[in-house]
Amino acid sequence: MTPPASFYLSFWLSLLLGLLCLLFVICWSCVWRGGLGWDGSYLEFNWHPVLMVSGLVVLYGIAAVVYRVPSTWRQKKSTWKLVHGGLMLLALLLSALGLCAVFDFHRAASIPDMYSLHSWVGLSTVLLFAFQWLLGLAGFLLPCSPPWFRSRLKPVHILLGNVVLILSLTSCISGINEKLIFTLDGSTNESYSSLPLEAKFANFLGILIVAFGMVVLRILSKEEWRRPETEES
Amino acid sequence: MTPPASFYLSFWLSLLLGLLCLLFVICWSCVWRGGLGWDGSYLEFNWHPVLMVSGLVVLYGIAAVVYRVPSTWRQKKSTWKLVHGGLMLLALLLSALGLCAVFDFHRAASIPDMYSLHSWVGLSTVLLFAFQWLLGLAGFLLPCSPPWFRSRLKPVHILLGNVVLILSLTSCISGINEKLIFTLDGSTNESYSSLPLEAKFANFLGILIVAFGMVVLRILSKEEWRRPETEES
Repeated sequence: MTPPASFYLSFWLSLLLGLLCLLFVICWSCVWRGGLGWDGSYLEFNWHPVLMVSGLVVLYGIAAVVYRVPSTWRQKKSTWKLVHGGLMLLALLLSALGLCAVFDFHRAASIPDMYSLHSWVGLSTVLLFAFQWLLGLAGFLLPCSPPWFRSRLKPVHILLGNVVLILSLTSCISGINEKLIFTLDGSTNESYSSLPLEAKFANFLGILIVAFGMVVLRILSKEEWRRPETEES
Repeated sequence: MTPPASFYLSFWLSLLLGLLCLLFVICWSCVWRGGLGWDGSYLEFNWHPVLMVSGLVVLYGIAAVVYRVPSTWRQKKSTWKLVHGGLMLLALLLSALGLCAVFDFHRAASIPDMYSLHSWVGLSTVLLFAFQWLLGLAGFLLPCSPPWFRSRLKPVHILLGNVVLILSLTSCISGINEKLIFTLDGSTNESYSSLPLEAKFANFLGILIVAFGMVVLRILSKEEWRRPETEES
């Protein structure tokens, strides 16, 4: 019943990659982009990558695989449902705050919203995530939800969960790429194509995000690593 | 044994979305970007999105789901292995040609290669695809491949197949976004942020690509839509 060592390898790898993503995105904002603030300036924009990577990618990914840890299987499923739903709510709130940061910055700098493909895919991702969270709340946490609805919802919930993660990776990669073009090609000192240290660092952040996402999707795809169904569930 | 109507719905939807992706990317290149050519100019660059979308996304996706069509299940698996491998080889060749187009254009225009995150993720995708194709050839098409190797390789082949598709979606979205910033913000007539018709059209191409990828990944994820294992396989 206990998953093999490869589960633990994947799980610890996801935690390590998630931590590295967080460190890299904070470091990018603080070392090269002037730090963080909430004043409508570019310092407020800097919260956007930090909050999207921490909420929509790292916390989302960890919250998705939390059921798979075998040491939780002996505990009540209802407890872990609350942990899963609670972490996802926090991830959703961080993502929404990340959107506020960019909209606030745009308003202060008179930059139009929602024109780039990055913004179209990114906003769709957060809206789909919010819909998925509400559907999960209605189906799996509300006690009045009928069993037939839960069993029909489960495969949809799993599918949508994967879709949100894939879309969030796509949003992050296009967003980092866009930000590097705007800031480096917009500066007089250096261009993106001369690949200064900041560009290498942020590109590597993109690779870390993709690697984290792939490890999480790998964990989610393994049938034999799923929490066994009990009478309670 | 026959998959339900939802399989056919997903399958025909993937074909329709794939066709729309092709039409949209050709239309973008021909109507707004001046058409196609192979002379080192921007006309040669225009082959890059056309070949990557047709090879790395549409043909790749169709080649991946070709096993799932129930009418093929009565025919020899070896035939459909060749169809799958052949279509994948064609997809790989189109992708490689798509890379040649952009490298050729960069050389002629003295633009550095491989600096953007889009190029890092995109090249990794094509290299991983080539590795996956060679591994598939060695494991599933060469008659000397031992059965233990085939059975160990199968889950890896399925996993890598999904990873390549997810990475190709990510590469396409970041690439379309990047191209629109470079061309529209680099022109004197209009900017990306004023969302001219070209921007709306190419953004919508991005949404179509994501939708196509999601439908293909959905088909691949359904266990009950897999070709039943026979003695031959």
